[in-house]
Amino acid sequence: MKLKSYVSGAWVEGNDAGEALGDPVTGEELARASTAGIDIGAALAYGREVGGPGLRAMTYAGRAKLLGAIAETLTADREAYGEIALANSGNTKVDAAIDIDGGIATLQFFARLGERLGDAGSLRDGRLDRLSREETFQALHLSLPIRGIAIHINAFNFPSWGLWEKAAVALLAGVPVFSKPATATAMLSERMVKDVIDAGILPDGALSLVCGPAREISDHVSGADAIAFTGSAETAARLRTHANVAGSSVRLNVEADSLNTSILGPDASPGSAEFDLYVREVAKEMTQKAGQKCTAIRRALVPAAVLGAVREALEARLGGVKTGNPRNGDVTMGPVVSKSQQASVLEALDRLKAEAEQVTGGDFEPIDADPAVASFVTPTLLSCDDPKGARAVHEVEAFGPVCTLMPYDGAEDAFALASRGGGSLVASVFTGDAEFARAAVAGIGPDHGRVLVVDESIGRGQTGHGIVMPQCVHGGPGRAGGGAELGGLRALGFYHQRLAVQGRVDWLEGLAGGAAEWSG
Amino acid sequence: MKLKSYVSGAWVEGNDAGEALGDPVTGEELARASTAGIDIGAALAYGREVGGPGLRAMTYAGRAKLLGAIAETLTADREAYGEIALANSGNTKVDAAIDIDGGIATLQFFARLGERLGDAGSLRDGRLDRLSREETFQALHLSLPIRGIAIHINAFNFPSWGLWEKAAVALLAGVPVFSKPATATAMLSERMVKDVIDAGILPDGALSLVCGPAREISDHVSGADAIAFTGSAETAARLRTHANVAGSSVRLNVEADSLNTSILGPDASPGSAEFDLYVREVAKEMTQKAGQKCTAIRRALVPAAVLGAVREALEARLGGVKTGNPRNGDVTMGPVVSKSQQASVLEALDRLKAEAEQVTGGDFEPIDADPAVASFVTPTLLSCDDPKGARAVHEVEAFGPVCTLMPYDGAEDAFALASRGGGSLVASVFTGDAEFARAAVAGIGPDHGRVLVVDESIGRGQTGHGIVMPQCVHGGPGRAGGGAELGGLRALGFYHQRLAVQGRVDWLEGLAGGAAEWSG
Repeated sequence: MKLKSYVSGAWVEGNDAGEALGDPVTGEELARASTAGIDIGAALAYGREVGGPGLRAMTYAGRAKLLGAIAETLTADREAYGEIALANSGNTKVDAAIDIDGGIATLQFFARLGERLGDAGSLRDGRLDRLSREETFQALHLSLPIRGIAIHINAFNFPSWGLWEKAAVALLAGVPVFSKPATATAMLSERMVKDVIDAGILPDGALSLVCGPAREISDHVSGADAIAFTGSAETAARLRTHANVAGSSVRLNVEADSLNTSILGPDASPGSAEFDLYVREVAKEMTQKAGQKCTAIRRALVPAAVLGAVREALEARLGGVKTGNPRNGDVTMGPVVSKSQQASVLEALDRLKAEAEQVTGGDFEPIDADPAVASFVTPTLLSCDDPKGARAVHEVEAFGPVCTLMPYDGAEDAFALASRGGGSLVASVFTGDAEFARAAVAGIGPDHGRVLVVDESIGRGQTGHGIVMPQCVHGGPGRAGGGAELGGLRALGFYHQRLAVQGRVDWLEGLAGGAAEWSG
Repeated sequence: MKLKSYVSGAWVEGNDAGEALGDPVTGEELARASTAGIDIGAALAYGREVGGPGLRAMTYAGRAKLLGAIAETLTADREAYGEIALANSGNTKVDAAIDIDGGIATLQFFARLGERLGDAGSLRDGRLDRLSREETFQALHLSLPIRGIAIHINAFNFPSWGLWEKAAVALLAGVPVFSKPATATAMLSERMVKDVIDAGILPDGALSLVCGPAREISDHVSGADAIAFTGSAETAARLRTHANVAGSSVRLNVEADSLNTSILGPDASPGSAEFDLYVREVAKEMTQKAGQKCTAIRRALVPAAVLGAVREALEARLGGVKTGNPRNGDVTMGPVVSKSQQASVLEALDRLKAEAEQVTGGDFEPIDADPAVASFVTPTLLSCDDPKGARAVHEVEAFGPVCTLMPYDGAEDAFALASRGGGSLVASVFTGDAEFARAAVAGIGPDHGRVLVVDESIGRGQTGHGIVMPQCVHGGPGRAGGGAELGGLRALGFYHQRLAVQGRVDWLEGLAGGAAEWSG
């Protein structure tokens, strides 16, 4: 079977053998994906010239309805998606739900939010600004949808959520989408887009999909386009320095994986609720999606005095994880996505082990699977005695079920160690001490896009260190890419051009009347 | 005389011959500037480690007071600045005032605005966000000052305004400034910073200045820093693709010059107020600062039927311009900044003349100056009959008193021609027709950072096509660099990290209490 791409209003197939997509448990080839012979430049132009005007002829509320209809269509086919996620990504039921239901919920969230913008065609800042003594001459700040196309380049770990969390915002903004999922897990993206196209929900050209390699996309972008990229820091740097992207000042949002921290507060001694919540969260972040989340906890910082206790508690908890074929009902953690990802995790592990001792992990027998063909990594906890002297533990990401435990001496030391990650997507702090929580937000905040603070009272109700909520900005500075996605309607800013309109007050008021109030 | 740099808390001199700064009228060498031997890496670290904590120990209101004090100190020495602007930039009194008083007014503007933020140390978005059924668990979006340094790279045309419009915002945000003026006109920047340092206004390390070439700055930036660049698209692309800048996701705002348009409405026939206002504005934009403004009108679009009338009116108006030595009271337009700028303008003119006819300009005798050593360009109006077929007139910027007149056929044609600039800082529209004004904003808005609409009623009170007001965002997409500076307190966003803090509602309310409400 060869995956198809949906471009210029038609489903097409690449004309060479392409790349193989496999089952990470059985090693079986499931499909191939090729983009050879597909005219990417023409596909982008079709989106801009056909999809853009179609979307922008509608209002925000009208486009919000489209998102609701997409969510409804996808909900109807959830079973099939779960099977694809199992086959192509080796997802457990819970892991598949995070990706599939997470995507649907994000669409529903923006459908609700977009409805509030009503029958407007643009966004405006709250008030007019006086520019001179002349009261009749003022300025209005308007944000207008860009007239290019939104190019979405997604990572292999979220073929559903990654597709829809980006598409929801661009479509609501009135900007056509050209989505490029990672080839390794593109089966789910293809099926979902097929369902949406078949349902006839979207205007022609509003949504394009390319399954397979598409390296020359950057040659065809223009200064009116916007690229949202999720993936490795290396690929991000290549994209950023591409002559056409840099030369045309193409809007570019990067969300790269990072060495996220979780800090156990000095007050949270063994036996406390926060201690237990911390151990549960670190173990969950290590094993959920087999540790393949850019937001996963990679560095667990604990007071030096309780290092041994945390280590023992984690060892016990991770001992209960059943790694293997998710088709077996006992299994709680599946494989990483492919043999090559497995190799890359093991290679990163070797670099970490030069600075850290291995606490759990190593040789193991996966349940109902042949280690020779399957892509498993067992949950691997490391412990680094000297995190101040170490380097790899703050810089090398093993994108699998891997986390390094490290001791800290006092709050300032903890915050300095967290910063050694060079900028991260998220940090969490487990403490019952409001003062420590406040100091932590001030101390590590500027290096993060999100900080989760957990105490006993919200221990069960909180949404999780690694879960991205559509209400909250997602992205982080430095190593994490310097971007910001989501965050409710703030996200619309990336797909709009904000401009100051200077002129007669009454004319500005007329313009403002056709715009929805918004603060980005 | 050799200019000094102020780094690591001391005035230092480069240890080689350096580059010459001249008088563009007499050709005389006024000073030299060298950065050889200056440790740029140490200077940046000093700003981050000494200046940053000092600034952030204050509140927004406290830092706003610093801006007010800087403005006061500068106001006291205005006379001396005017002399430097005359000698080193060849500025007329009016041109010098735009740069010097513009810088002071921008400082005063942010001093007033910053005071309103009060005794806060961070900024917050308006409301908390619900994340789940659990009402006790919510999210607050906080913006915290970054902990790096603000690196400001400025263009030769605004040694005062460029310095202060950037520094005002960074200092208000609590971020130390490392300013690098263009070498050719750095005398004024040096003198102003010397006055401010001597006055003892700022905490140690809050403001550094480097006079002379400093190409290796990019090697020393970190992911916590922010670079604001104003200058050519070529230099911007070099900066953007620098391995360290791209690899560390350094915040980068680019403001590049662009092919700005002014459109005469179809209703504005000869004899109408808007026709006269248009002619006055185009001529003013050509001659103010000898056309050396990134916002200057480069393309004048007029209805085909009135092309001849506009051409004649502009010819008459430009005939009254007295080009020469600004020390002579009759002179209304000075030189461009240097012989090399003169050569680059003339070279660009040659490229434009391949597509457009020359209406005014050519050989002339500057008043009280020797053409052999002086850097004059006479006001040069071109006219292009076939702007749809032409290319250079939309892409080649002659950064001097040069503008190309072009006819359009109908509104859609005018908007499409404006877009041919590939993204611009500003456009203006002269019309008495509210419907045409509205269509123009929608039609050209997404390609611009600012649109000025002028009719008779605000003809005299409006602030000008080329004048950047601190209330309004400044920057534009694509060719114009994709950045946004100023725009009132919106500007603070560039120097803050916005993060979602998730946690207990009462703790979040505590954090919000120490933050000022703000919408970026």
